[in-house]
Amino acid sequence: MATAGLDVLLLTCEPEVRYFSGFLSRFWESPTRPWFLLVPVRGKPIAVIPEIGAAGMAATWIEDIRTWSAPDLKDDGISLLKGALDDVTEAQGRIGLAMDLESHLRMPLRDFEALRARLPGKAFVDAGPLLRSLRGVKSEAEIDKIRYACHVASSGFEALPGHAALGQSEREICRQLKINMLSGGADSTPYVIAGSGPGGYDNIIMGPTDRQLGAGDVLIIDTGTTYDGYFCDFDRNWAFGRSDDEVRRAYEVVFAATEAGYQAARPGATAADLWAAMARVMEAGGSLGNEVGRLGHGLGMQLTEGHSNMPGDETILQPGMVVTLEPGMTFAPQRMMVHEENIVIREGEAEWLSWRAAPELPIIK
Amino acid sequence: MATAGLDVLLLTCEPEVRYFSGFLSRFWESPTRPWFLLVPVRGKPIAVIPEIGAAGMAATWIEDIRTWSAPDLKDDGISLLKGALDDVTEAQGRIGLAMDLESHLRMPLRDFEALRARLPGKAFVDAGPLLRSLRGVKSEAEIDKIRYACHVASSGFEALPGHAALGQSEREICRQLKINMLSGGADSTPYVIAGSGPGGYDNIIMGPTDRQLGAGDVLIIDTGTTYDGYFCDFDRNWAFGRSDDEVRRAYEVVFAATEAGYQAARPGATAADLWAAMARVMEAGGSLGNEVGRLGHGLGMQLTEGHSNMPGDETILQPGMVVTLEPGMTFAPQRMMVHEENIVIREGEAEWLSWRAAPELPIIK
Repeated sequence: MATAGLDVLLLTCEPEVRYFSGFLSRFWESPTRPWFLLVPVRGKPIAVIPEIGAAGMAATWIEDIRTWSAPDLKDDGISLLKGALDDVTEAQGRIGLAMDLESHLRMPLRDFEALRARLPGKAFVDAGPLLRSLRGVKSEAEIDKIRYACHVASSGFEALPGHAALGQSEREICRQLKINMLSGGADSTPYVIAGSGPGGYDNIIMGPTDRQLGAGDVLIIDTGTTYDGYFCDFDRNWAFGRSDDEVRRAYEVVFAATEAGYQAARPGATAADLWAAMARVMEAGGSLGNEVGRLGHGLGMQLTEGHSNMPGDETILQPGMVVTLEPGMTFAPQRMMVHEENIVIREGEAEWLSWRAAPELPIIK
Repeated sequence: MATAGLDVLLLTCEPEVRYFSGFLSRFWESPTRPWFLLVPVRGKPIAVIPEIGAAGMAATWIEDIRTWSAPDLKDDGISLLKGALDDVTEAQGRIGLAMDLESHLRMPLRDFEALRARLPGKAFVDAGPLLRSLRGVKSEAEIDKIRYACHVASSGFEALPGHAALGQSEREICRQLKINMLSGGADSTPYVIAGSGPGGYDNIIMGPTDRQLGAGDVLIIDTGTTYDGYFCDFDRNWAFGRSDDEVRRAYEVVFAATEAGYQAARPGATAADLWAAMARVMEAGGSLGNEVGRLGHGLGMQLTEGHSNMPGDETILQPGMVVTLEPGMTFAPQRMMVHEENIVIREGEAEWLSWRAAPELPIIK
């Protein structure tokens, strides 16, 4: 912060507030009330939060907790926030706020503009890169939580052929998977998608629907399952009844691309290098393209966070960074094959966090 | 929109985009890519979305779908969005955007400011009240989904005394509840909190934790469980082993406050009237205050949406509005009692959507 000339960070989003405070609550699901955490360059953080959160925040390490009775139809914390910002900045102070790619401002735009107007000498500066670099390298405690989430999901995926059957719907199969992951120790499964179709699926972000699986179908399920506020994010593919050569071949190409990504995932390589290693294998394997826009990303307190494995992202991999390898390709019109695994960058070879997918497309009879 | 002088609505958040398009995807869990839907005052909506969403959006009624390969580190859809806005507005056009209470702008602030700078003649105008009034009154199809979510959660809560026991943790009890709700037909349970303590709980937005339930404890669980993108939002309370007079009395007061809220929930009454009806009962019953800031709210595509049952909110209740009645009070230092039920406003008496809580505090032996 000192190097960037920042006097204070103004944090408004759940993962940002949690990262610095430890405040973990599902209450962010409600969009009603804004929450603010100030991290000054000197001194301790200040929470400026709705009164409903006082007891919860008092259980964290944050000592300076300022509350208002929210919602307030006239002044929903803005005067209180202005006062706190004045307390920790000079007249010409610089307030860091995430403004760039992947960031959102979790407060009404009207209120942000009113706040800015009431702090005329102060500058709001983009703190997105700083926050990304801090959060990108995980502690071992964070990695333990992600590994646990990965193991629970891996176990759920491995059990799937035992309960999924021809004639079941995507929705039924995903419901049992979620139940198995909860039983296995997951806290929640905010993200499950399913795609299926004859010989392949045409997208990886919709469903699960009531579509029933028939012979020759390929099913993908992707999940972000959490433990103690940390995500896994990976998928698995299955054929139902039978699979054709084209599908099996696409599976093998994408499996090999994941291996190439894994081998490239060393300290000092860039996110773009990871992309190149995987893309090369898929191009050689007949890829017709990729609608996902990248081949994996950072992972942690959010389903996706930090860098993107894509051309132009020169983020340098460091030990402790948790990364998804997500090679995907269109191998025939409207038919995609996407794999995903989760790893943590270590000195030398990376550590697998998800249990490696089967090298050949599993068939559910 | 014509009355408000709006040429187009610019929608950036999941429920807003879904409300007008029908696009339902869990992919919004990833903060990486922005999504835009334009609803012009004349003509059909235009989706400006990441290419990864093309197949899913094509399955809705939206025909004009413009995509870019996202994420794009240099121009993440902003030029495409600017072009679409130019297509549907004159040089001095007025672009409606939710800016007020409860709203967020789901795109990077930097990109919004760049967009605004590239549309110098056009005005961004607050469309929050318009969107709220549209979404506030539900169709019968919407109400059916909320009722179903309420029934699944009600059934889960009713089954809880059959599996919860002294010595279990909040986390264990909530896990089984979630499994039962999934088995019972819920799509997901994005929101579960649990609070417990001897003779009462001190907050309603944290947990579930590993705290074990002992004799004399009171447990609250509140859930937002979904079906087809629609939420329920209500809670239940239980005593473990035994309950003292003070707790039972607080339960009865808050139960009576819910009844008073229900009786007041008629077309033509205001949200402030609902608050007054419930607050009166709790004041007479010895309330020491309320940290929640309101006594219920609108409900539907979000856990909380629309109006607040509180002084100053003069929203007029209309048939089809789905409302939570959420009376809560502090009845002793650090001890709260909060009830919540879901209703839909009808001509005459409202319809209960959640199954009414027991009139006396249930005790789990």
